[in-house]
Amino acid sequence: MAKDKSPRRPRAETPKGFRDYFGAEVTERKAMLDKIAEVYHRYGFDPLETSAVETVEALGKYLPDVDRPNEGVFAWQDEDADWLALRYDLTAPLARVAAQYRNDLPSPYRRYAMGPVWRNEKPGPGRFRQFYQCDADTVGAPSVAADSEICAMLSDALEEVGIPRGDYVVRVNNRKVLNGVMEVAGVLDPTNPEKFAHERGIVLRAIDKLDRLSVEGVRALLGEGRKDESGDFTKGAGLSGDQAEVVMGFMAAKRDTGAETVARLRELVGASVIGSEGVAELETIAALLDAQGYGPDRIVIDPSVVRGLGYYTGPVYEAELTFEILDEKGRKRQFGSVAGGGRYDDLVKRFTGQAVPATGVSIGVDRLLAALRAKGRVGAESHGPVVVTVMDRDRMADYQAMATELRRAGIRAEVYLGNPKNFGNQLKYADHRKSPVAIIQGSSEAERDVVLIKDLALGAKIAAEASVEEWKSQPAQSEVARGGMVAAVRAILERG
Amino acid sequence: MAKDKSPRRPRAETPKGFRDYFGAEVTERKAMLDKIAEVYHRYGFDPLETSAVETVEALGKYLPDVDRPNEGVFAWQDEDADWLALRYDLTAPLARVAAQYRNDLPSPYRRYAMGPVWRNEKPGPGRFRQFYQCDADTVGAPSVAADSEICAMLSDALEEVGIPRGDYVVRVNNRKVLNGVMEVAGVLDPTNPEKFAHERGIVLRAIDKLDRLSVEGVRALLGEGRKDESGDFTKGAGLSGDQAEVVMGFMAAKRDTGAETVARLRELVGASVIGSEGVAELETIAALLDAQGYGPDRIVIDPSVVRGLGYYTGPVYEAELTFEILDEKGRKRQFGSVAGGGRYDDLVKRFTGQAVPATGVSIGVDRLLAALRAKGRVGAESHGPVVVTVMDRDRMADYQAMATELRRAGIRAEVYLGNPKNFGNQLKYADHRKSPVAIIQGSSEAERDVVLIKDLALGAKIAAEASVEEWKSQPAQSEVARGGMVAAVRAILERG
Repeated sequence: MAKDKSPRRPRAETPKGFRDYFGAEVTERKAMLDKIAEVYHRYGFDPLETSAVETVEALGKYLPDVDRPNEGVFAWQDEDADWLALRYDLTAPLARVAAQYRNDLPSPYRRYAMGPVWRNEKPGPGRFRQFYQCDADTVGAPSVAADSEICAMLSDALEEVGIPRGDYVVRVNNRKVLNGVMEVAGVLDPTNPEKFAHERGIVLRAIDKLDRLSVEGVRALLGEGRKDESGDFTKGAGLSGDQAEVVMGFMAAKRDTGAETVARLRELVGASVIGSEGVAELETIAALLDAQGYGPDRIVIDPSVVRGLGYYTGPVYEAELTFEILDEKGRKRQFGSVAGGGRYDDLVKRFTGQAVPATGVSIGVDRLLAALRAKGRVGAESHGPVVVTVMDRDRMADYQAMATELRRAGIRAEVYLGNPKNFGNQLKYADHRKSPVAIIQGSSEAERDVVLIKDLALGAKIAAEASVEEWKSQPAQSEVARGGMVAAVRAILERG
Repeated sequence: MAKDKSPRRPRAETPKGFRDYFGAEVTERKAMLDKIAEVYHRYGFDPLETSAVETVEALGKYLPDVDRPNEGVFAWQDEDADWLALRYDLTAPLARVAAQYRNDLPSPYRRYAMGPVWRNEKPGPGRFRQFYQCDADTVGAPSVAADSEICAMLSDALEEVGIPRGDYVVRVNNRKVLNGVMEVAGVLDPTNPEKFAHERGIVLRAIDKLDRLSVEGVRALLGEGRKDESGDFTKGAGLSGDQAEVVMGFMAAKRDTGAETVARLRELVGASVIGSEGVAELETIAALLDAQGYGPDRIVIDPSVVRGLGYYTGPVYEAELTFEILDEKGRKRQFGSVAGGGRYDDLVKRFTGQAVPATGVSIGVDRLLAALRAKGRVGAESHGPVVVTVMDRDRMADYQAMATELRRAGIRAEVYLGNPKNFGNQLKYADHRKSPVAIIQGSSEAERDVVLIKDLALGAKIAAEASVEEWKSQPAQSEVARGGMVAAVRAILERG
């Protein structure tokens, strides 16, 4: 009788586009989130933790990056026919919460949230389908004082996590100014907002591509259209040369000082009411920040910030790191954007029919962490636990008692719990663990009530091959009375 | 021409079985997780954070609670045909990681993990489809020294988060002892392990139900079977009275001291090799814990711990809170289990074909938090931020500067950002925020360069109705020079 074939073994693999985080990768991110939360808290923001799962209906179709291929969410149908999905950001759940608890929450409601979000996109190098966001938003505050507060807080948060002043800049722009520019360019008619909606859509998508396309590429999309490298033709907005010039002028309006930039924008928006309102908002934000000491060394008015202009309804802000790093190929490049946000007054309206003003920022924690690592500001080699080796497996209780004693003294410690037969393996293990100190007590040491204390920082290199005897002869090793173990270990840790 | 009907508004609702956590609910859980992580770290455990999403293939069918109706995971098919799912615990991802990185991880590998897990189950009162787990496991350590270490660490973790000694007990049992008992009862033949597998399955499921059924119910399931309240009949294992008696004796084997319990278990397993091995393991665990000072006031051998016996392969442990709380109906009841774990030597084998010994514990963080709240050990009313009110909306910069000054002094503060017209609303808001102090500066105060400082703890009750004038006359309010604002606020906060 043939035996059943054993079933195929499952593959031990992270799903495509997902990854695991080990040790310092986890603690460094946590330390950064803790620092940011501390800043948010100091500004009066309260934590909110929604579940990873929302109804598809509540999430809606509000992904900010509308141009991405394979845009989308991870979704499935629940047993009772509701479609559920993993949140793709922390803003959509906030809009749902602001609507659901509108009678209970304080108004304005300042909240922060941090946690993973999921995007069902084609994964790429360094681009994962699960990543962290760390957001702060104010719901129910119509004035741009709320926007300026978020900008100041973002600046504080960046400094708190270790980006010194001068290494970053928060740039502020305003969607309303763009609307004014569009009015001047003749693609927005305030008396008939529906008119030219199609053209404006193309304009918005074009300028949102400024990062990826050249200025020429954007200009082509404003006019007749553009053929990309693959030969595909994208139809443009059909603006005349003069019209396109006005829009392009908006993105290039930055001058040396905030006052000059504001003056230039005022020129561009001319008589447009919405445009003038936008310029006045930028002026107010600059004045408020100035009064609190956030000058142009930290926060600047910059109309070239176009990311998200299509998504937001008023002020838009973006934090950029200004230092250069070396990319994978050793080329210098600017690190770029690590946080962005703005005002989005229509999100809650989806649920309630009532417009609720809201503004907020999202910090890309993983990118920010990468920046700090690139600058060597996190990730300094930290050492592992003290390892108590096992010379005599019948005396496990003694070894565990040593580890307990070290821990009670606040020293991270563990007993080797693999097969103790091969002492070399124990030392290899301690090496792998980056242990600063190994404790050794064989029977002869036990008889004399002493322990050997091995300073592994001194002896790491030959650890893998050395015999017990060789080890014992090393200068990095000292014999101390059992009662003096904790003090001797502490002395080594403090020295190192 | 009829206008298009506007689309139906989405419902602003958390999906069924999920919930939102606000403010202190978030920070209290975080504080607890931080404390537990600190203990795990001190024992040499390293953090691991896997993604929420795994392939269904990697997760397998290893849900511990095999008896639940609607057991299951949230799963969906990825574009490239892989089935993906949300993790239902933190152990299955660890098994995948241990297999995937087996050449890179230290061995033994001690890791901790904390985060949400998801169960696709019918939600019930207090039972959610997303909840937190906080696990520590040792992979690659065959000796029960690893189990005893986990028990000691669990005990330390409970004390660290605020459960004093005496209010909890960690109970230890061993699956091997049960196997020995089954051998004696004649439903396990060591020379033919396949034989009686069906009967043993029923026995395991029966004793796992000891919590829910009476002793009589379990006994019935060991014998002919049992009719439940709805009239449904569950077929039993078909054991004779004598056979059932042996199994029942196992669960009732606890005696006054560990030594007596061990002696009783030795009687029960008789000549069974596996049973004797299990009893010896329990003896060793007790001796190791004793040597480190973890006596029976914290950790006891208790064969009545049956939860998860079917899932684990060796020692099993469970932490129970021993104090009484009042349930929703005001009845006293034991709080019960808050953590459980044990040895599961076969999980990694699924992937690699090689058995890898592993043991670990999972703390039910949300239950533990509920226990601490029930005892009043967390959730003490904490106050909100200082609120700087807005008397003159043109002087927003001054108000924001006050908040900035307070924050720089380490005091949590915010400016009121709603519509400032109605001063009563500002005070209602401060009340809602549990603000300890409100700062008021109208034009007359500004002229004299002073601020009014309102101690809200003294004046909270009449806050909602009072006019500005009434407020100004109150004793809980004082006028201080603008330059003395921070010191005056700090004095109130320190007093309160």
